[in-house]
Amino acid sequence: MKTLPADPIVPGGIAAFAERLRRGEITAEAATRAYVERIETLEPRLQAFEHVAAEDALAAARSLDRLLAAGTDLGPLMGVPVAIKDLFAVEGMPTTAGSNVDVTDIIGPEGSFVKNLKRAGCVIVGKTKTVEFALGAGNHHRGTPWNPWDGETHRSPGGSSSGSAVAVAAGMCAFAIGSDTGGSVRIPAALCGTFGLKTTVGLWPLDGVFPMAPSFDTIGPLTASATDAALIFAALEGTAVATPAPPRGLRLGRPTGHFFDNLEPEVEACVDAALAALEKAGIELVPVAFPEAEEVTETFPIVSPTELLSVLGRDRFLAIRDRMDRDVAARVAHGLEVPAERYIRIMWRRHELCRAARQRLRGLDGVVGPTLPMAAVPRKNFDDADFEHEYHRIVPWNTRPGNVLGLCATTTPVRVYGAALPVGLQVLCQGYCEDRVLAVARTIEEIVGAPPRPDLTPFLD
Amino acid sequence: MKTLPADPIVPGGIAAFAERLRRGEITAEAATRAYVERIETLEPRLQAFEHVAAEDALAAARSLDRLLAAGTDLGPLMGVPVAIKDLFAVEGMPTTAGSNVDVTDIIGPEGSFVKNLKRAGCVIVGKTKTVEFALGAGNHHRGTPWNPWDGETHRSPGGSSSGSAVAVAAGMCAFAIGSDTGGSVRIPAALCGTFGLKTTVGLWPLDGVFPMAPSFDTIGPLTASATDAALIFAALEGTAVATPAPPRGLRLGRPTGHFFDNLEPEVEACVDAALAALEKAGIELVPVAFPEAEEVTETFPIVSPTELLSVLGRDRFLAIRDRMDRDVAARVAHGLEVPAERYIRIMWRRHELCRAARQRLRGLDGVVGPTLPMAAVPRKNFDDADFEHEYHRIVPWNTRPGNVLGLCATTTPVRVYGAALPVGLQVLCQGYCEDRVLAVARTIEEIVGAPPRPDLTPFLD
Repeated sequence: MKTLPADPIVPGGIAAFAERLRRGEITAEAATRAYVERIETLEPRLQAFEHVAAEDALAAARSLDRLLAAGTDLGPLMGVPVAIKDLFAVEGMPTTAGSNVDVTDIIGPEGSFVKNLKRAGCVIVGKTKTVEFALGAGNHHRGTPWNPWDGETHRSPGGSSSGSAVAVAAGMCAFAIGSDTGGSVRIPAALCGTFGLKTTVGLWPLDGVFPMAPSFDTIGPLTASATDAALIFAALEGTAVATPAPPRGLRLGRPTGHFFDNLEPEVEACVDAALAALEKAGIELVPVAFPEAEEVTETFPIVSPTELLSVLGRDRFLAIRDRMDRDVAARVAHGLEVPAERYIRIMWRRHELCRAARQRLRGLDGVVGPTLPMAAVPRKNFDDADFEHEYHRIVPWNTRPGNVLGLCATTTPVRVYGAALPVGLQVLCQGYCEDRVLAVARTIEEIVGAPPRPDLTPFLD
Repeated sequence: MKTLPADPIVPGGIAAFAERLRRGEITAEAATRAYVERIETLEPRLQAFEHVAAEDALAAARSLDRLLAAGTDLGPLMGVPVAIKDLFAVEGMPTTAGSNVDVTDIIGPEGSFVKNLKRAGCVIVGKTKTVEFALGAGNHHRGTPWNPWDGETHRSPGGSSSGSAVAVAAGMCAFAIGSDTGGSVRIPAALCGTFGLKTTVGLWPLDGVFPMAPSFDTIGPLTASATDAALIFAALEGTAVATPAPPRGLRLGRPTGHFFDNLEPEVEACVDAALAALEKAGIELVPVAFPEAEEVTETFPIVSPTELLSVLGRDRFLAIRDRMDRDVAARVAHGLEVPAERYIRIMWRRHELCRAARQRLRGLDGVVGPTLPMAAVPRKNFDDADFEHEYHRIVPWNTRPGNVLGLCATTTPVRVYGAALPVGLQVLCQGYCEDRVLAVARTIEEIVGAPPRPDLTPFLD
């Protein structure tokens, strides 16, 4: 049986790593080497990466070590190894956007967000797998990573930032970058038991990122903890790190409908227990109606394929559809039938819904509920077309409202309340209130405890 | 032959009226009565109004006089009689939006802009005629006003703020409010020899105004002079009145293409003479390429009918199209065929064009050229379908770029340089730089001289 070097951010997270780095107890190179070795050991089974940049990462880490030794401190992310969803252009690395079709002309060169990561001193260890064009749950052409919580059965890691979630859950990087158009950070984070932050649309620049549905596209980190996410967010934004809010005084809305639909019994029991723990700690849970979330269920399936079709362009889509993943091609093809009038009216209605949602969130520190109605399912279940159809209908039920209504959101692992597989607890918050949602998530993390990591022994055979 | 009372803002414009009002030499009631009498005398021939609110206006004027006497001064627009395009809801007045179909549910109650006019002390004398839903040049159902520059032949006053332009040109109000989606302030202003300001999309709120194409819709005043427009703009915005800029030091772009296409010889000669006068006065004219303006020619005819269709909704349009003006219905029907993908790509491209236009206008105080390629044509010319088609193609050639590219603009009458009928000189300026474009327009007005008024004798028979 193979062995794994220790994960350099365990225990204590990125903050503890940063302290040890500055005390000379570890180097960026050693941390990067540890992650590279973990990737090399786990990757044959987990298949989380599209591209591993071991040598470039080690070279970058060494120069960051030298820079720090010479007195230039780039801040708390300096020397921190990160994996990037393969929807982002990174100079010197290939970009597939999960497709066998070349769309690099649409993506363009490395964009502002990746450049900001580099300026903050991050070491990019590689590109993580995504589904084609970030649409859907699996990738028939380029493979779907294993969910590290089950070594026997290939369970879905969730989409579309699947590789990023697996890489974080299995400790193949300190944190990973994903993108979230309808739940693509939160769904894999919840299914793989990591923390995930979906930022507000418009907050972080999307140049150099494949646009799936520009009206909803956002960037977000997947991390081992809310504490790490708060540190990363503050480092990239140049603001103070969000600290946990005192639970007594926090008011969270508990939706009376929609968000508790279709729950698997185990998920329901786990989320109920987690919510009871929050209340016991002093957080006030307020029942709220949230009808805007309901309406989103009709908005998203029109807007997202239509915008993705527009990104590709009708002519190009028709030329490449046979080389696309059949599920993705079928979904994009729906966009061909959408008249402009329908799209425009939906988007105008969306502005009203966003306004209504802002009103509804007034006086609340967020709205809380399950991130997903179910835990990770075996991939083979998708062989049943009926199952697959129902799965795609239900999975983004609770995440899409965050995108369509212009909110920010987090998902926190709460499996400890009695589930066999990871379960996520979502907090939705006003747009551009990432500091608030991270403070709430840190409070929840204090109550719930640090998320457990999966047992990776089955992957070491 | 009938006689007309003197126009209360001649000479000296609104500023002189405001001074006389405060010196007790005139009252708001007297000014309103003068305009009401002028309307009653001219309206049978000019047909500029959809609704005249004589009694309400006189009552409002009297209470404003009392308020001023009691020491409450609402500012420079207090007691100033204004006419409003019948696309705006005004409490207590009917709203047709130029249609025989009731669309008041789409318009809603009186909106922020009209309320602001009232708070500034304006007296609303009535609603001016527009073409149906602000689309097109004439109104087959509710009539097209006469252009007051020709008493013999019914010449087009331009659309869609036709009544507002005629009312200002003929002195039936101190100023009028129009809206401009593709040129609907500037075209009638230019054809009727008034000054017109098209504000930047997004600057003034559009609640209570029939939305024609919300991505391009803007509000703007039609006035007797640039000086009046600067005063009105400053009063509504709460800023200082834009003063004329010294001509030496002004740099205006003179487009090398597009804006000088299709010019009638008389318009070309008049504009050339006006530009020569500007240069002689010290304004620097810089040749500029402006390819973004060219591309707009393809953008607008897709976006505007599609958005108007979306405003009405497909089902409603299909139900009312037989009761609509046949030309307007035919244009809106084009929207039925537009796929969402086409609309979305055009709008994304529009963002790029706006950015490019911003770059192109850097270092310039504006871009100058003819507002329209021709002067007012006889209405009977429209009986020829080929003429009408070509007219609609050419008329908005120079105005639409201002809407699509997110600019603000003015049109100044320059007929004095040798044209028989009014000719407008357009200045386009960066979005949200209304102060700048008004300062430039005031400089031009100082060079050109105050615009002459039409001889109204033919309408007094």
